[in-house]
Order: sequence, then structure tokens, then C-alpha cells
Amino acid sequence: MNLALIGCGEVGRKRAQHLAGARLVHCIDLDRQRAEQLAALGSGCASGSDWSEPLGRADVDAVIVATPQDSHVQITRAAVAAAKHVLVEKPAARAAAELHGLAELAARHDVRVRVGFNLRYHRAFQQARRLVDSGALGELLFLRARYGHGGRPGYAREWRAQPQRSGGGELIDQGVHLIDLARWFLGEFVEVAGFTHTYFWDMPVEDNGFMLLKTAARQVAFMHASCTEWKNTFCWELYGRDGKLQVDGLGGSYGVERLTWYRMLPTMGPPETTIWEYPMPDNSWAAEMAEFIEDIREHREPAVGLRDAIAALDLVGRIYSACGHDHRP
Amino acid sequence: MNLALIGCGEVGRKRAQHLAGARLVHCIDLDRQRAEQLAALGSGCASGSDWSEPLGRADVDAVIVATPQDSHVQITRAAVAAAKHVLVEKPAARAAAELHGLAELAARHDVRVRVGFNLRYHRAFQQARRLVDSGALGELLFLRARYGHGGRPGYAREWRAQPQRSGGGELIDQGVHLIDLARWFLGEFVEVAGFTHTYFWDMPVEDNGFMLLKTAARQVAFMHASCTEWKNTFCWELYGRDGKLQVDGLGGSYGVERLTWYRMLPTMGPPETTIWEYPMPDNSWAAEMAEFIEDIREHREPAVGLRDAIAALDLVGRIYSACGHDHRP
Amino acid sequence: MNLALIGCGEVGRKRAQHLAGARLVHCIDLDRQRAEQLAALGSGCASGSDWSEPLGRADVDAVIVATPQDSHVQITRAAVAAAKHVLVEKPAARAAAELHGLAELAARHDVRVRVGFNLRYHRAFQQARRLVDSGALGELLFLRARYGHGGRPGYAREWRAQPQRSGGGELIDQGVHLIDLARWFLGEFVEVAGFTHTYFWDMPVEDNGFMLLKTAARQVAFMHASCTEWKNTFCWELYGRDGKLQVDGLGGSYGVERLTWYRMLPTMGPPETTIWEYPMPDNSWAAEMAEFIEDIREHREPAVGLRDAIAALDLVGRIYSACGHDHRP
Amino acid sequence: MNLALIGCGEVGRKRAQHLAGARLVHCIDLDRQRAEQLAALGSGCASGSDWSEPLGRADVDAVIVATPQDSHVQITRAAVAAAKHVLVEKPAARAAAELHGLAELAARHDVRVRVGFNLRYHRAFQQARRLVDSGALGELLFLRARYGHGGRPGYAREWRAQPQRSGGGELIDQGVHLIDLARWFLGEFVEVAGFTHTYFWDMPVEDNGFMLLKTAARQVAFMHASCTEWKNTFCWELYGRDGKLQVDGLGGSYGVERLTWYRMLPTMGPPETTIWEYPMPDNSWAAEMAEFIEDIREHREPAVGLRDAIAALDLVGRIYSACGHDHRP
Repeated sequence: MNLALIGCGEVGRKRAQHLAGARLVHCIDLDRQRAEQLAALGSGCASGSDWSEPLGRADVDAVIVATPQDSHVQITRAAVAAAKHVLVEKPAARAAAELHGLAELAARHDVRVRVGFNLRYHRAFQQARRLVDSGALGELLFLRARYGHGGRPGYAREWRAQPQRSGGGELIDQGVHLIDLARWFLGEFVEVAGFTHTYFWDMPVEDNGFMLLKTAARQVAFMHASCTEWKNTFCWELYGRDGKLQVDGLGGSYGVERLTWYRMLPTMGPPETTIWEYPMPDNSWAAEMAEFIEDIREHREPAVGLRDAIAALDLVGRIYSACGHDHRP
Repeated sequence: MNLALIGCGEVGRKRAQHLAGARLVHCIDLDRQRAEQLAALGSGCASGSDWSEPLGRADVDAVIVATPQDSHVQITRAAVAAAKHVLVEKPAARAAAELHGLAELAARHDVRVRVGFNLRYHRAFQQARRLVDSGALGELLFLRARYGHGGRPGYAREWRAQPQRSGGGELIDQGVHLIDLARWFLGEFVEVAGFTHTYFWDMPVEDNGFMLLKTAARQVAFMHASCTEWKNTFCWELYGRDGKLQVDGLGGSYGVERLTWYRMLPTMGPPETTIWEYPMPDNSWAAEMAEFIEDIREHREPAVGLRDAIAALDLVGRIYSACGHDHRP
Repeated sequence: MNLALIGCGEVGRKRAQHLAGARLVHCIDLDRQRAEQLAALGSGCASGSDWSEPLGRADVDAVIVATPQDSHVQITRAAVAAAKHVLVEKPAARAAAELHGLAELAARHDVRVRVGFNLRYHRAFQQARRLVDSGALGELLFLRARYGHGGRPGYAREWRAQPQRSGGGELIDQGVHLIDLARWFLGEFVEVAGFTHTYFWDMPVEDNGFMLLKTAARQVAFMHASCTEWKNTFCWELYGRDGKLQVDGLGGSYGVERLTWYRMLPTMGPPETTIWEYPMPDNSWAAEMAEFIEDIREHREPAVGLRDAIAALDLVGRIYSACGHDHRP
Repeated sequence: MNLALIGCGEVGRKRAQHLAGARLVHCIDLDRQRAEQLAALGSGCASGSDWSEPLGRADVDAVIVATPQDSHVQITRAAVAAAKHVLVEKPAARAAAELHGLAELAARHDVRVRVGFNLRYHRAFQQARRLVDSGALGELLFLRARYGHGGRPGYAREWRAQPQRSGGGELIDQGVHLIDLARWFLGEFVEVAGFTHTYFWDMPVEDNGFMLLKTAARQVAFMHASCTEWKNTFCWELYGRDGKLQVDGLGGSYGVERLTWYRMLPTMGPPETTIWEYPMPDNSWAAEMAEFIEDIREHREPAVGLRDAIAALDLVGRIYSACGHDHRP
């Protein structure tokens, strides 16, 4: 399986380190040197700054799109049209409308398009999925989540702070991960309330997004994404009739990743508690890539695809509208 | 300073243990025996089941109203009319409207009315107050809070589950503490969004209250109170430009009380962190009572009074209305 | 099954609360009133201050000896001679020599004698036992343990500080628990090094005991018991070739009880980690009592008996001798 | 201030990153390429594989000796004889005897010799030092410490596992840090008990060292160093009459560095607790280097020098002798 990587920044380099057996044959970046350095780490990998090049190669099977989101759609669309499978980083576009017609195009060219909502592949979330599927929590009630970091000097001048490039601020950057995880466990949200605001950073996009989403069955996702989160935080709590699952940390600066299962007993009282810690290096990138390669080999619709991106971006857009933010490109 | 205690349940007995030097001279409870047992622990303390008795005693200076909230107002009003100072447990009524005119009545009779929003007096919150007042956090931005317990068998049949008695469910029970703490640090909230719902307990009041409140300056209080909180939880996080304060636990089943101060440095990066733990027994009840006695001696308007109760109940009522819950008595 | 309780102090009252279905028919204490109050909580339970009384009752099946250790042997011996089964609190005597001949006497009277090394019955230790028995740790290498509290005002004047009553200080009080747990997992210790000293409390017995014990296979138990442990601590760590088990806390002021299993992988690196927390009330007293009753019913030699007490006291005595402490009665 | 670095392995590279304003002018390593790569990171820095070269340069003021310990003494001696100041990594030699006469030689050549017992310079230990010096703990009683890691595949074949190179195993590798810290706070130890053993790794040196050291005033250091410490651990606890200090973690895989101060109150009971966390990158290397440069500039005897190395190695040697290990070169 031959892959081309378009976008050799931090995320792109992560992808290059976890090829799950595939071969990286072409690296592209606007910064030619960055592409060269990354290509040099492999063998027989070309490099350049023109993303149409790998799309023209017959020997390229799939493309990883790891650029900032203002080019996600353009590149993905072209790759699909060139009959290349695509793994595009979340959120896959700056707004839901940009993805219009892309799923149909992919179907027509019989290619798989996966969206890189990578948190699903963290060990804690894979284990949480298995527990929920086994009925451990019983009927799901609601979830809470908090995700964020404290930025860094100059954060307000990075591309994430430019709505034309990013489509928005913290909500579309980290908040969209929370939205995707919430959809993965609770399903579709029909009511949306929230608030986005720029409290600290001198930039035209929000640095905080508060969300209160409801499913048709009134299950709530009560979530907050922040880049004024002074101490890096990831905490996700899913409640069911029979217990609760809690994911803390994601490794690295977010702290050791841990899944806690609180199991309520018929007597109520303090819950039985089991905790799994995952201090080993995160394998989510490798797991996600392996699934993508299998999607291609098995002719299988990716578990996380354009429908998930559209749904998440739609919710993001509705919150922005309600708040008076308009980041539509 | 002679006190009468009206209501000898769990909270009333707590009050009786922390008299801060005052003398308990009369115990009242619908359950005569409960009143007798409590009175017997002191000396020279009368007991009975008619709350008007202590109001008729000239030697009673102040009254503690620790009954369920459907009688708060009636008893408080009568006590005030009898020129007794009053310490009434939160929330002081079932709805803001019930408190109409009470402040003026108290002023006319020149008595102090304090409302028992007791969490303010926990060591961690007293220290947090001092730090914020000293400018440690800089300009305040927003706060998050989570408070709850998992109930107990039979919870749905307790008085808290009867709207006529309680005025509502979890929102008015524990949520009102969060609202009071939020007002104490961020001031008045002008916009209210939220959702209350009964997910688990078979009762006519909500077991979960989600709140998104905003001040005129757009500071948000993003808070959740729950009695399907399977693992007892108290976590309160206040964000400022220069750092963050976090209170975890309240002692007892809520975990050791702790205050963490994260101080951002000009270089950003991981914050300087100082943590104070308070494993000693909670002294909030004693501290609160001591301030009440001083309010009386010093002819001083209590730091926490009817205005705070009205404001909190008003916010509670607005959330209930928005959700279609109507607990108005 | 009818039980008599001799010694109605803190531990005795604990025993009375966890009868595991047996009936308490007689309470004895030098303090007659204390015995009466405890007996009154049951029904049809006699009380008094003469411990020979219950030994003379034909309807008493077994006796719980929960007095300070200077009377353990005398009472146990008499109870055995009266053909009563005995559950005697650790350490069962002030020194190993006191227990000479007692096991044979019990065999002659066909009664069971169990020694109350109660920590074995904590959930975390029961689970640790199962894991070790299943081979989870592989070959056992060594263990470390720390156990202690910070005393209280007047500690130096309590009975534990009087060698004639107690047989020694912290080593024989809490240290003997650590020795028993170490024997339970590593077997017999053939080499003993250690140091006991009185650092803080004004009393003639040690407040700290440091132990370095070795089995014939050179497995080490490296342990410290202290009553200048300013923050109550219990931490026990067992190492095997394939991993490690750690027990933290015992509930109450020692912190939530928790068992952690670190499982080393062939690749080495950070271990797989699973944690069980036991926030529910400790059931060790009930579990221990249930086993004792079953020992009697099944005519079964107790899992924890005089042989364990003798071995532990022998080790204690050897450490005392090596340090120049002589607490022999 | 011009420095030469002899030994460009892991520790040497660390030194090169924290020059505290000095200039690195020469890098030496048996592996010529390693020396070149390190020199290339600076500017105008020579490189080579012959350590006598920088000693011959007039413009070199001081030398950092970061080789394995079998060459520490030889290089240090030559550097001193060449009138260069020396910062030599702990433990400075394979045995105390190797350092014989070196202090006098340094005095004769008027050069400073500092030994890199770097843990003293961690923020938590610097703060602990200040607290102890201010009398916060009152009279010091004893300390406990645990330090270790779980090794890695191939650990038994590394230079640390070769007694001729290293002078011993875990005791002289990590244990010597614990000995130095214990001396720093409790002073000289006059009695030494302990046990070293190889439990797991297939090598001729110990993988575990248990220590029970006593000062003349009977203060104990009860310490364990291990490279079968399956979960990387650093925990150091110092007890005084008035409280306790605890250092957990060292950053990195040892966990976030934290200092906890437990302050006992006259009423005894749970101690007042203050915790400082140090999540920022460790600055001990920079702090240590800055002090070394100041030692040189101020003509000041280093706070940590040959006397400390000799004392620590002497204690190490006495433990080895008592156990039958003889690693003397």
C-alpha cells in the first residue's frame, strides 16, 4: 500500500511515524524543505511542494491530507476525483457546506474517505467502547467533557487564529473532537445550545466553546473546549443507569491516560471501581492507520467518515450562528 | 446569645454542634422525640413541636430555621415579626416570590436574616476568596463546577422529591449552592440557559440540572448538579487571566478538601502549582455561626442574606421555566 | 453459634458489630458499664467484669479475646481448658514464649484457636492473594511496606506505651501486622535485621520499628512501622519477576483502600496497570468472623492461628534483642 | 568560562545543554562521531577521542567528566594536575579508595572539584532544604527513600552491569544518590546495615540495594534502590518532630516532581498540608552548572565535592562488604 502525505507539519509527521505497514512514497508541503526532510527519513520517497503531483502518480493508492483546514476540501476532492483513497484530518473542512457532494463523488470513484477523529482510537476510548457495547453502563443518560490547553506565546498569530484558514477557533479545533466522541456514544443531537467567546487571546476567533447538546431522547452532552485551560486537561465522563465511565488524560502533557469504570451496586452506595492506566506510548495513530488500510483492502466504509465530519461541523456551525460568530468562508 | 433551633434533622443537628459560643435554649421538631433528644445533649434546653413557642420567649435572641424549604418562609417571617434574628438554611424558600417583602420586614424589625449558603465557609473557599481579592487570578473569565451524589435507595420517596415541599429537585437542592458560589465570585448573571431532567429516579422533580449562565461582561458559569453522580463529586474551577483556582472535595464522602492554585507565568507553559489540603474536620458550620453571631452583635448586614437567596432562586426559577418544569408552590 | 466477648474496647466493639450470624450472649470488661452498654445493644446478652463467667457457661461455644495483650494468654489458656474455641486478637501474647504449650492444649481439648491478624481479610489483600496464587506475579522477589499513624495527645500514657501490658511499642502493635502479611506471602524468615527506637513520644517503648528480614531464598521484607507517621499511611508493595502488587490505604483515616497490579510486558517499558478501589465500608471483620465460625463448624484448623502468632512474635523478639530493647514480661 | 566535556553519552549531552553561560570549546568521546555531533551543535567547538587534548589547552578553564566511572578518577586526576577545575559526575570513582589523595592534589593546584550529585538541585529538594533550614520540621528524626526503574531489554549487558567499569550495581548507580541526599540532611552515618542482591537481571552486580543507616544520634536512613522497580519511582520522606517533607517524582518517567509539607499541629490530628508541584522542565542541571561556575569565579569550595563522594562511596563499600559483594577494582 503506497501512501502520499500532503502536509508535513506536526500532525503530518505523526502520520508518517505510524504507517502501519504501508509505504510512504511522496511527501508534499508548501515548505519544500520540510517535505524533503520527512521524505529523507524513509527510502525511495519523493518530495515536493505541489500536491497535485502525487495525485498524478498511478502507484499512489491513498493520500493523507494533513494540511490546515482551508485546503482540506480542495485537496480531498481532487484526490477523490483522481481515484485515490483519502485519510483527511479532522475536521475535514471549515464548515459542513464545504463537504457538499463529496461523499457522492467518493462513491462514484469507489474510494474510501476516512476522517481523522483520532481520539476514538486511544486505548481508553477503545476499552470504553467495548464496555458500553457489552452493556456495562446500561442505558446511557448523559455525558460531560472538558478538553483544553493553555496556548503558547504567539498563539494568537498562528493559523488556527485565522478564521479564513481554520473556520473558527477552539470549538472547531478541539471542540470538534468532543462533539465526535459524543456522537459516537449518544448518537445524533437534535438540540443545540452553547456559547463561544474570546476571553484572553487577541484574535478574531473564540478561545472557549461551551456546549449543551441534546439527543431526541433528551440525553445531554455538556462539554467545554478551551485554550485558556491553564493546566492541560482532558476529562470525559459518560453516565449510564448502571454506572459511569471516565477517561482522564491522553498521555503526554495531558497526563497519563486512564479509564475508570464505576459500577453501581443494587445497594447504591460507593461504586465498585476498576481503573486501567495506559502509561505506554499512545498507539492511536497506528491503530487508526491500520483500520484505514483495512478499509481499503476490505472495500469497507470507514467507521469514521464524511458523514461524521458533516454532522460535527453542522453542530459547530449551529453553535456559531447562535452566538453571532460567523466563520463561514 | 440564646438560640432556638427549629428543625432537628441532619442539618439542624449539625447547627447544634457548632454554636460558636451561643447557647441553645429551645429545640423544635415536628417529631417531638427528635427535639427532646437533641435538647438533652445540652443543659437547660427546652423542646417541643410547636415552632411558635420559642418565638414567644423574650430570652431567645435568634432562631435557626433548619426545616424543609416549604416552611422556611412561614417560620422566618414569623420569627422576624417577633423581632428574632434568623439564620435560615438555603435556599430560604421554594421560589423567589415567596421571599417578597421579607427583607423590608426584617429591616422594620431591625433584625438580621442570614441565609445558610454554607459552602462559602469551607476553608478552601475562604482561601480562594482571599486569593481572588488579592488579585492572584487577575481579571476573572469564567468558571466551571460539578456537584453531586448518587442518591440512596428510597431517594425518590424523600421530601426532596416532593415539589410541594422542596420547590424542585437537584437544581434547587445542590445546584443552588453552585449558583451562590458563582454569584459570589462573578456577580450577577443576566442570561440564563440550562436544562433540567429526570433521568434515573422515579420522581416528579429533576435529578440533573445543567446550567450555562452569563454575566453582562460575558463571564460564564458552566455548572452541573446531579444526584445520579455515581461517585460523589465536588469540583469547582475558577479561571482568570493570570491563573486558575480549583476546589476539589468537601471532606467526608466528597473526598479530602483541597484548593489548587495554578499560576500562569509570562512564558506560558505549565503553571506554577501550589496545593493546600484540608484533611482536618470541616469548620464551615462553626465559622458561619460565628459570623452570624457577630452580625447580630455588630448590627451588621450579613454577608449572605435574603438578597442572595432571592437572586439564586430567581435564576433557578428561570431555568425551570425555560425547561417546562413548574415547581411553583 | 454462641459467642462471648471478653474485652469491650474499640476492637471488641468492632467484633460485636460483625458477628457473621453468630449470637453474642455474654460481654465482659473490667469496666462493668462498658460491658453492659455493649450487651444492651443485643438481646438476651449477659454482661459482667469476671471473664471466667462465660467460660463456665455450657451454652457458650466460642470466646473472643479482645483485651490488651498482657491478658491474652491467660484468658485464652483458660478458655481452651474450658473447651471453648477462641478468637484472640493479634498478637495473642506479649512474647512468643508465653504461647508455649498452648497449641498442644488446644489440640487436646479439640478446640480451634484463631489469631486476629485481620488485615489479611481486607478486600485488597484477598484479591492480592488470589492474583499471586494464580501466578500473576511469577516468582516472588521481595516486598516493602510502610504502616503508621501519628499518635494523639496522651499517647505516651496509654496502655500500648506500657511494656508490661503491651510487650513493646509500635513494632508489636502495628509492625506485627506487617510481619504477618510478609510471612503470608514470602514464608518463613531466617535472617532478621532491624532497629527500634523511641524518637518522639515520651514513653519506654519504641515509636518506630525498621525491619529487614530475609527468607532462606534471600527474599527480603523491608518494612517500617511508625507512630510518628504524621500522615496516616498504609502502603504495601510485593514484587515478582512478572510484576508488582501494591496495596494503598485501608479505608478510614488511612485513605481509600486500593490494589494496583503492575504487569510487566516482555518489551519491559511502562507496565500495564489495573487498579481496583474499594471505597465501600471495610468487610474484613465480618469476613474473618465468618471464617472462624466455619473453622468451628468444619472442624478445620484456622488459616491464621497460634503458629502464625508464635512465628511473628519470635521475629519481633529477635529484633528487640538485637536492638537492646527487652520487653519480656 | 571555557569548558571541555569528556564523555558525550546521555549525561554528557545533558551537561552540554545546560552550560549556564559558559562556552563549550571541546568535546571528547571514545566514539569520535558522537563527540563531533555534539560539538557541531555549538560553534567553534573542537572534538576528538583523546581526553588529554583539552587538558593541554591553555584556554580551557574547566572540564566536565561524564564518562563511566572506571575512568572518572584517572581523568579527574589528570585534569587537576593540569590545573583545570573539574565537575565530575557521581559517584566520581568506583570505590572510595580510588579518590585517595585527590582532594590534596586539587588544593595544591588550587582548582575546584565538584561532584555531580545532581538531585540536590531539583526544585523540590532546594525548597526542602530551605524549609528544613528555616526550622519548619524541628529536630530531624529519620528518613525513608525509594528510588528505582525497571531496566530495559539488554540492561544486563550494559556497562553498568560490569563491575570493573561501574564499581557495582544499583547501589552505586542510584543508591548513591539516596546516600548523598541522606547525608545532606542528616549528616554522617556511623552504623551501616543493608543487603544487596541480584534478583532478576542476569548480571554479576546487584539489582537491589536495601539500606539501614544510622547517625550517632540514632537518626535512621531507611532506603531502597532498585532496578526491578517495575513502575519508575522516586519517593523521599524526611521526618522531624514538627512535621514531614515528602518529595515525589523527579519529572519525566518518574512522574511530576512534587514537594509536600505536612505540618503537625499542637492538637496532633491530620497535619496541615501544603503541596508544591513543579511541572515545568527540570532546571537542576542548569542550577548545578551555574553554581560550579560561581565556585570557580568566587574561588569557593563547592557545596558538593570530593568529601561527599568519599563519604558516600565509603558507605557503599561497607554495605558491599557486609553482603559479600566485592566490586573493588
